[in-house]
Amino acid sequence: MITHLLDAGDFARAASTGEAVVGGEGYRHLFRARRLATGERLRLVDGRGRARWAEVKRVGRRDAVLVLGGEAPANEPAYALQLVVAMLRPERAAWLVEKATELGVVAIRFLRTARTPRELSAARLGRLERVARAALVQCHRARLPEISGVHPWAELERLVHGQGDRFFLDPEADPATRLERRGLSGTVLVGPEGGWDATEQKTLARHAVPIGLGPRILRVETAALVAAARLLP
Amino acid sequence: MITHLLDAGDFARAASTGEAVVGGEGYRHLFRARRLATGERLRLVDGRGRARWAEVKRVGRRDAVLVLGGEAPANEPAYALQLVVAMLRPERAAWLVEKATELGVVAIRFLRTARTPRELSAARLGRLERVARAALVQCHRARLPEISGVHPWAELERLVHGQGDRFFLDPEADPATRLERRGLSGTVLVGPEGGWDATEQKTLARHAVPIGLGPRILRVETAALVAAARLLP
Repeated sequence: MITHLLDAGDFARAASTGEAVVGGEGYRHLFRARRLATGERLRLVDGRGRARWAEVKRVGRRDAVLVLGGEAPANEPAYALQLVVAMLRPERAAWLVEKATELGVVAIRFLRTARTPRELSAARLGRLERVARAALVQCHRARLPEISGVHPWAELERLVHGQGDRFFLDPEADPATRLERRGLSGTVLVGPEGGWDATEQKTLARHAVPIGLGPRILRVETAALVAAARLLP
Repeated sequence: MITHLLDAGDFARAASTGEAVVGGEGYRHLFRARRLATGERLRLVDGRGRARWAEVKRVGRRDAVLVLGGEAPANEPAYALQLVVAMLRPERAAWLVEKATELGVVAIRFLRTARTPRELSAARLGRLERVARAALVQCHRARLPEISGVHPWAELERLVHGQGDRFFLDPEADPATRLERRGLSGTVLVGPEGGWDATEQKTLARHAVPIGLGPRILRVETAALVAAARLLP
């Protein structure tokens, strides 16, 4: 089974007309690389959580026509998890985006901390978005995670406001406090390799529950993934 | 705090004499790169689960002498988890070894399946072992995971024999069956991208409990990591 990601606008148009014309890169992927043929079925998603079945009606030399069918499974978890993570080196950020997308995270936001004053260029952000798109298609999700940053520390309160359960990873946390879902959405804040600094720690303690992940010191992206694997249903 | 990994033999000698002489690569890392000085404390581990405190007694131009102190925390989880994973492409295998080492897995064994007839050269196995060493030091474990393979399918029974709880990942598994610790050790078997073939599935069902990880299709290394994150305490 193949999942194909349309722009939200194209998906909405297709949903209203009952047909979608696929050209360009999507055409090359589906009809050259994957060799989809007339009559075959695929799953269309809009990157915002909607999914429909579709059938190939006609394959031309430069584009193809799909006819839309009924609703398809969204394959989205029943918990909206946002990760807010101290900015990482590009290669590790890309791994985190790929894996967090597969796990079903709805947002990955990179945070500037005192110990990670890193930047994220538009080109690198674009690369991370492409990684998320590829992972969505591969794992058959329907919703693309939002990827944003680097957010200055001052935006922390805005980032976690109204986001449900709030946790921050802290090696000094009481091991009795468990990382578990309380509501339907939540945020996990993951600090840099050197840990949060004292001022950050104080601010965090006002906004979120400290959680430890055991005695080993996990890399930033490992800690974020472990938290997601344990929280997501 | 610094963790330094000694050969098990060197560790045993140091433990009996109360002193360790560090030269070569270890010397360059500790005393050039990390700039440890006389009087400073570090943690020595033997890669087999033992850990001792040590203090720098003398730093020479080519080697240094450490004096051993009391037992240090091993930082090992109270569950011995073995991952048996369909052979992966080298980059993804390396990533899995790094993350699984951080999480506290005791063995990562690569398996040849009908859909992944890949080999693992001695050079690549050596590279994976170096990745595990680096991860051990970085996360402050005491035990190196065993890395082995590619094991032929015929070795499956031997690999899981006497290894405690046994699970295999299977997208068709009853969602009510939970991945949870029953004893003090266990094995999780993770199939290739295309899934186990019918014969493999039958053999597995005789040896292990099928477990699903939800509706999304996870990559092999993601699935292995999610299983480890959920099983390990």
